[in-house]
Amino acid sequence: MKARHDFEALDATDPLRQLKKQFVLPPATIYLDGNSLGAMPFDAVERTRQVVEDEWGVGLIKSWNDAGWITLSSRIGDKIARLVGAGKGEVVVADSTSLNLYKVLSAALNLASGSRRVIVSERENFPTDLYIAESLARQHGLTLKLIDSPDELPAVLNDELAVLMLTQVNYRTGRIHDMQAITAQAHAAGALTVWDLCHSAGAIPVELHAANADFAIGCGYKYLNGGPGAPAFVWVNPRHADKFWQPLSGWLGHDAPFAFQHNYQPAPGIKRYICGTPAVISMAALECGVDTLLAAEKLGGMEALRRKSLALTESFIALVDERLAEFGINIESPRDAALRGSQVSLSLIGEMDAASYAVVQALIARGVIGDFRAGSPNILRFGFTPLYLGFAEVWDAVEHLRQVLVGKEWEHARFQQKGAVT
Amino acid sequence: MKARHDFEALDATDPLRQLKKQFVLPPATIYLDGNSLGAMPFDAVERTRQVVEDEWGVGLIKSWNDAGWITLSSRIGDKIARLVGAGKGEVVVADSTSLNLYKVLSAALNLASGSRRVIVSERENFPTDLYIAESLARQHGLTLKLIDSPDELPAVLNDELAVLMLTQVNYRTGRIHDMQAITAQAHAAGALTVWDLCHSAGAIPVELHAANADFAIGCGYKYLNGGPGAPAFVWVNPRHADKFWQPLSGWLGHDAPFAFQHNYQPAPGIKRYICGTPAVISMAALECGVDTLLAAEKLGGMEALRRKSLALTESFIALVDERLAEFGINIESPRDAALRGSQVSLSLIGEMDAASYAVVQALIARGVIGDFRAGSPNILRFGFTPLYLGFAEVWDAVEHLRQVLVGKEWEHARFQQKGAVT
Repeated sequence: MKARHDFEALDATDPLRQLKKQFVLPPATIYLDGNSLGAMPFDAVERTRQVVEDEWGVGLIKSWNDAGWITLSSRIGDKIARLVGAGKGEVVVADSTSLNLYKVLSAALNLASGSRRVIVSERENFPTDLYIAESLARQHGLTLKLIDSPDELPAVLNDELAVLMLTQVNYRTGRIHDMQAITAQAHAAGALTVWDLCHSAGAIPVELHAANADFAIGCGYKYLNGGPGAPAFVWVNPRHADKFWQPLSGWLGHDAPFAFQHNYQPAPGIKRYICGTPAVISMAALECGVDTLLAAEKLGGMEALRRKSLALTESFIALVDERLAEFGINIESPRDAALRGSQVSLSLIGEMDAASYAVVQALIARGVIGDFRAGSPNILRFGFTPLYLGFAEVWDAVEHLRQVLVGKEWEHARFQQKGAVT
Repeated sequence: MKARHDFEALDATDPLRQLKKQFVLPPATIYLDGNSLGAMPFDAVERTRQVVEDEWGVGLIKSWNDAGWITLSSRIGDKIARLVGAGKGEVVVADSTSLNLYKVLSAALNLASGSRRVIVSERENFPTDLYIAESLARQHGLTLKLIDSPDELPAVLNDELAVLMLTQVNYRTGRIHDMQAITAQAHAAGALTVWDLCHSAGAIPVELHAANADFAIGCGYKYLNGGPGAPAFVWVNPRHADKFWQPLSGWLGHDAPFAFQHNYQPAPGIKRYICGTPAVISMAALECGVDTLLAAEKLGGMEALRRKSLALTESFIALVDERLAEFGINIESPRDAALRGSQVSLSLIGEMDAASYAVVQALIARGVIGDFRAGSPNILRFGFTPLYLGFAEVWDAVEHLRQVLVGKEWEHARFQQKGAVT
């Protein structure tokens, strides 16, 4: 059985260890919630100050040109493209995940054959995806069919299917879909695919072009470290990008926004997926977050980050198995590394399931920040961000969990008010 | 004829003069573009630093509750409500103007009788409003009819009209619509109203309830001083708020977002108009901006700001008339104060019209920041924000314009690249 010094040794030889210097993390904290809100890049403090105090305060309206605000959506989009296997000029940053999903799902439904009347997704998809699909299904008189397992996919890939809308990495379990294989199957059935990359962009290597995907959207505030509520991104395969006027036709998606024309004429390509004026200060913080990932490019990029991520999650699973065996804990994430994103979810067996929220609270009181997701079973969710986490922290996290369980610390926390956890 | 010292005297006795201390403005600058991007509140620097460095950097995910991020949309919405004659719990901050318009116009079209097939707006409305209406008209198979003058209103207020969508204060000319009278006429014709308050919220007193309006949306980054691309706001008359599931049904508009339910169930009232996760850093700056207006409440509020705004624009018009008579300048904003927002637009007569852009650039080179709006005629647009502008600055702005015209300074600027002006 390994000991803490074995993990310290892994840290000492970790080629990515220098990347942690890009972040500020609070003292005495093991942050395992980068899958919900990524940690703050050091540069974000100065960059947002600059945008507020210099660009807004001094540059004022001139900063739309002089400070490049008007090109932020595309500039950051191009950076994100490098993380998801997309090309330059194919990604823009705009609005939120939900809104971008509305745009691309509208486009996909428009491009699909009118005789196809079904949208398929998973019941365990993140709810906002289902709510947006529900809305569009209602508008278009379509059926939204939810499957409970990937095993049901073959049965729904038929000539009724218009669009298959999946999140590549499940938010509860971290299970990865094979984007390339599923996209090929959907195409073979004559359907289009919409991929949500919220838990994959910056977490695992994503290859949109290699997978021949149709549409993708994703989140800026999780693994991209863009700050609370950071704007989201959207990608459309160039073969589709010019074919549809997405319905959220705001002025910055116009071909000539500053000509103030009366009629809408969409910009060529992905720029038509921009809608209104972007939230510049939040965009600036997002760019700092994306840059923390691009800093890994010279060290092997997403492939190297993936290797470390898997080493972290493998270590965590092994330590839970070995050191917490007596407590009855299920690993809810795939044990097969190829199927596991950059997180590990646990559930507590039997009557302890009801204490899951309190256990997470007791861990947070100890400075180990994961999160809780209600469900059946309830989930204790731990994200492992290779940019700023080390191996000794994995050991320590498991040791803290052991002590919470040994000391029944959750008994003190369990009756606390259940708050909003995002 | 008045002289500069007369305007200095007005400043000396201005009861609102103390409000300027809330802002940081660059030296040697007369900022007449608060109608495009409001100036930076002093507090925005520290507040955004706090959100980034303390709440995000240290509080991390816990700040959704501990720092109140989750309630920001409603908290700022309640503050904006006080500026537009709406009640507590009736306004939320979310997304952009364009997106909020999409939500409320969708709602209005749904609530209108199905036999009514026409949306009416003005050709001179801000383009993004027209683009969104065009999109929804296309989706619903409706006709978007644009009128060229308010005189045409009576003819379109008939039993074909579903929704009358107007911007209260025109972005080019600053001309004010009588919201109360027009809403009454629209209701008498059996139609609903959607009001865009982008150039009125924080610029003139707005009384949504007194006007019995149906839906309203507005901008955060103009007269609300919320920072570049600040999130926008949305109000729905409580008599309509629960009647429709607006289509941009993101998770934070759900009745129980953290229950992670599979089916959408809209929150009661205005909260269903929230969509995805809000851009927190930009929201925090917006709150500082809104607070600069609420600081006027103890000095007479929007009524007092309106009196000063009109005194500023009256002064500007009188000085242009008197001191620039030889140059041939038209006042494109209403001379009737009751019909004029917080801006004055000018146009240059004859062949000078083509030099309008260059004249604005020459003024900017002198530190007098207004903006240019292409059209027929071209417009030189000057916004007068009573929170931070004084009367001597009005004198100085006109004197700078005189010198630009006398010295033909625009000849040097006129061949510059025409940039993006927002």
